[in-house]
Amino acid sequence: MTQPKVFILDVDGVMTTGHFLYSAEGKQFKIFGPDDSDALSMLSGYLEIRFISSDKRGFKISESRISRDMGYRLDLVSSFERLQWISERYSPEVVAYMGDGFYDHLVLKNVGYSIAPSNASSYTKSFAQYITDSSGGNRAVCEACIHLLAKFFNLNRTQLLPKLSKPI
Amino acid sequence: MTQPKVFILDVDGVMTTGHFLYSAEGKQFKIFGPDDSDALSMLSGYLEIRFISSDKRGFKISESRISRDMGYRLDLVSSFERLQWISERYSPEVVAYMGDGFYDHLVLKNVGYSIAPSNASSYTKSFAQYITDSSGGNRAVCEACIHLLAKFFNLNRTQLLPKLSKPI
Amino acid sequence: MTQPKVFILDVDGVMTTGHFLYSAEGKQFKIFGPDDSDALSMLSGYLEIRFISSDKRGFKISESRISRDMGYRLDLVSSFERLQWISERYSPEVVAYMGDGFYDHLVLKNVGYSIAPSNASSYTKSFAQYITDSSGGNRAVCEACIHLLAKFFNLNRTQLLPKLSKPI
Amino acid sequence: MTQPKVFILDVDGVMTTGHFLYSAEGKQFKIFGPDDSDALSMLSGYLEIRFISSDKRGFKISESRISRDMGYRLDLVSSFERLQWISERYSPEVVAYMGDGFYDHLVLKNVGYSIAPSNASSYTKSFAQYITDSSGGNRAVCEACIHLLAKFFNLNRTQLLPKLSKPI
Repeated sequence: MTQPKVFILDVDGVMTTGHFLYSAEGKQFKIFGPDDSDALSMLSGYLEIRFISSDKRGFKISESRISRDMGYRLDLVSSFERLQWISERYSPEVVAYMGDGFYDHLVLKNVGYSIAPSNASSYTKSFAQYITDSSGGNRAVCEACIHLLAKFFNLNRTQLLPKLSKPI
Repeated sequence: MTQPKVFILDVDGVMTTGHFLYSAEGKQFKIFGPDDSDALSMLSGYLEIRFISSDKRGFKISESRISRDMGYRLDLVSSFERLQWISERYSPEVVAYMGDGFYDHLVLKNVGYSIAPSNASSYTKSFAQYITDSSGGNRAVCEACIHLLAKFFNLNRTQLLPKLSKPI
Repeated sequence: MTQPKVFILDVDGVMTTGHFLYSAEGKQFKIFGPDDSDALSMLSGYLEIRFISSDKRGFKISESRISRDMGYRLDLVSSFERLQWISERYSPEVVAYMGDGFYDHLVLKNVGYSIAPSNASSYTKSFAQYITDSSGGNRAVCEACIHLLAKFFNLNRTQLLPKLSKPI
Repeated sequence: MTQPKVFILDVDGVMTTGHFLYSAEGKQFKIFGPDDSDALSMLSGYLEIRFISSDKRGFKISESRISRDMGYRLDLVSSFERLQWISERYSPEVVAYMGDGFYDHLVLKNVGYSIAPSNASSYTKSFAQYITDSSGGNRAVCEACIHLLAKFFNLNRTQLLPKLSKPI
């Protein structure tokens, strides 16, 4: 299996629980969770990491966590344009992708390595090569990172720390 | 079984988790979830879609998601007036209805096709012809839409995309 | 078994999920749920309903839902003074009490009828005569009301509606 | 087994559900839960209690609950400096520690008594001597306190109250 050169992640339902808190003024909050940021830091020494989201109205909320606080690139890409967007930038076989949405199966079946969180729809999960035990916003991305490090970079959990403690 | 001409959905507990976040100033937030909006877009090419809610104090919150962001009609109809309200507008047998509340059984047993999310009370679920695996605010409506498309419009998941990718 | 004359409910963890949302400015939100308000309306024709809470800092949040929006009495009573507070106002055997907290066992074992939601600690639940299937903020109180109506007032679910549809 | 002299707790995922609510302006809320504060009050008569957190951006949120409302010391200590930070202040064998994060295993395996909540990652839990049935923000700390009181101070639940009702 080809070693991925980039890990592209969906935001809502992957880094978040998938929920949107609405007030009378519209979409206000999203719910992020523990350990994902630390685990992505570990993984970032081994491949490129970037995020895409199709949530236009909540894009500034996603940006405040993904770009401003965590420092990753985040692009607005609609569900139906994702595969094309990815293909224009990368050779699909070096792409690892993690998504939970109904239309993410379009991407999951056309990239080198595909991951879905446990909260993805069962249809979406049927196209993933790896499904995390955890759900989005509850360490699903942390689990995916540890899996990628073990599978493609031969790093097990006990090795992660000494090697990676500095840059985090 | 008659093909439904309209899909009427309750908002709280169906499109949301059913929760109300209160501050000292009163009801402030409701929690919506992923994929429901996309799935309703798919279904909207096949029948009319509209929403009713009995939550007067939180109506503006519901409106901000359902009407302003998603573009559907939303009417304030109390739990006890729902069946009458529906009967004045539609022939009940062409109505598909999805609700989770204790009193929704009044509607569920008197329309053409009845759906309840997994988080509905067991009494309410006993009157539904279809119960989703997912709960409100966690893809229950997405699941209901896919079910309606398959059951009444002969569209399975693999057909949904090519046919429907444009208008979404 | 004596018919209760009053139903006293704890707020946090019974009417809410038990969670407190904190900002840098302190306690801001509590999470209430569906159907409880409707079910209490039904029950209110049969006995007195009132609430107590030991949460001083979040009291105004509780008041905004329980007193202002739902119209019930709410008193601030600490966990250790609850039994005495109740005894000074009612003969314990005519009191039905619903609570989830660790110290609620002090009350649960000394009133006429005791109820705990599924999310109560196992120790607390061991003192309850009735444990709801639902958790606080997810219809636990609705379930308790229907149980009380059936057990003490001979009303089953199908009878609830015609009799009670007016006052709600 | 040595009786602990201090109980050091992580905040996020232990006292909270581990979630961060983000708005477009950044991290805004954390979700705390019931009974933990009462149980820590009971335990505080028997050993020192203090908290550490590695969440710099959300530190003021944690402070508003842990320090301002509950009155405990809270220090900002990164995940990788925790063991050293603890060792500089206490003899590790008199330290009871409760944490849920991926890197908490560094501490859990080097202190006298180690506790993890049920929501910790399975890797972290494999290093804990005691795992609570409850998750963070849902009485995990209450459960840990009762466990410590029973294991190291010979106090069972029925004894907790008479002895401890005063200082709470």
